[in-house]
Amino acid sequence: MNIKLFPVASAVSADALSGATAIVFDVLRATSTIVTALSSGYRRVYPVVNVNEAMQMARERGFCLAGERGGQKITGFPLGNSPLEFSTGPVAGADILVLTTSNGTAAIRSAAAAEKVLTGSIINARAVARAAIYEGRNIVLVCAGSGGLYSLDDILGAGFVLMEIVAAADTAPAMDDQALAALCLARYYKQDPLAGLMDSNHGKKLLGLGLKNDLYWCARLNLYDTAPIFQGNYIEN
Amino acid sequence: MNIKLFPVASAVSADALSGATAIVFDVLRATSTIVTALSSGYRRVYPVVNVNEAMQMARERGFCLAGERGGQKITGFPLGNSPLEFSTGPVAGADILVLTTSNGTAAIRSAAAAEKVLTGSIINARAVARAAIYEGRNIVLVCAGSGGLYSLDDILGAGFVLMEIVAAADTAPAMDDQALAALCLARYYKQDPLAGLMDSNHGKKLLGLGLKNDLYWCARLNLYDTAPIFQGNYIEN
Repeated sequence: MNIKLFPVASAVSADALSGATAIVFDVLRATSTIVTALSSGYRRVYPVVNVNEAMQMARERGFCLAGERGGQKITGFPLGNSPLEFSTGPVAGADILVLTTSNGTAAIRSAAAAEKVLTGSIINARAVARAAIYEGRNIVLVCAGSGGLYSLDDILGAGFVLMEIVAAADTAPAMDDQALAALCLARYYKQDPLAGLMDSNHGKKLLGLGLKNDLYWCARLNLYDTAPIFQGNYIEN
Repeated sequence: MNIKLFPVASAVSADALSGATAIVFDVLRATSTIVTALSSGYRRVYPVVNVNEAMQMARERGFCLAGERGGQKITGFPLGNSPLEFSTGPVAGADILVLTTSNGTAAIRSAAAAEKVLTGSIINARAVARAAIYEGRNIVLVCAGSGGLYSLDDILGAGFVLMEIVAAADTAPAMDDQALAALCLARYYKQDPLAGLMDSNHGKKLLGLGLKNDLYWCARLNLYDTAPIFQGNYIEN
């Protein structure tokens, strides 16, 4: 098994994804939110890049509309991108979400050329690691990044998944240096994943917006045992 | 003080370098070799990108010719790119080197737009950190990378310099996430920098070429107290 990591989703190539299992990370917060929602009673999440397209889809199909830009809920949207908004499950049977975020939703779509696309985060690290091993293919770790830049929160999410892969795999996987560095970073922060999220510049920005509880939530290693799959146009468990 | 890290030298922008102090890293092995040579009696190193240009300069000016491609000494060159070849000092007064390597020499030249360009490695981490702090500008850490890819050995070199900067700076510097990750990786490997070099894919390649002693040498933290400067066309202490 061969493992590569791309720190910014826009740099991932179709060539790297071809025949591989991709795991997409936007730890703060899109993939953590998707994992939380699908573990809490939501049935399906449509990741949509464009705000107007998301609004139109929600309106036409009666879906629940959620999203953020710059870390803050989009004006007029009933829901933002905090996992805490979704952890209590859907209201009044509206269990299909349309989600548009600054980085994560585009990252998920950028991995679509892979054989299988899984949703990764710290809160489902072990489950997504096992699902990827079960697939038996090479693995491409696709980090969303933040505004086109390397973002430590995503690298840490990939690193925690790598720790689980290394622990569970029959033979040691071959890794590129980006994946190896992510693994070492997760080991560095393993006693306190929250410290890693708080150290990251994106984490600091969210702290500045008063979103401390989101960081606490996103740092809860292996909270959920699900590995949501993106296929066709949506994500499901 | 603001610190940014570029994991691959070809991606560094003139904008990022403008007004800043750059520190260039090709830990395995060009910058380690340059630091060793200039600490061992060599007076000056000309980093040259092109093999023919290096040969011509050495012939016309009577300089000592050194270099590698793919980790191995270039055919017809008297010296390769192993720091061990230079640690005993120059022979017969030939104390000016022309050096051409796969990644490092181009990386040094790619940083030329900075206000000052320093030569960084694990073996001179503390000295180069202090020199950069003394300059008082923002710092750009330019990693050579290997074949255009992120290379853990260079990131680790930058990380060890960051550990020294953090220890010596009056106020905590602001870092981008790439720099922060390098700092954490150096802390992860601080008891055994050699293990970090051996884990890296570039290190493994050199081990496969029988260059184990080079890795041992390049991992000797703070072996030298020099911070060579690249200006004009050459590097000097």
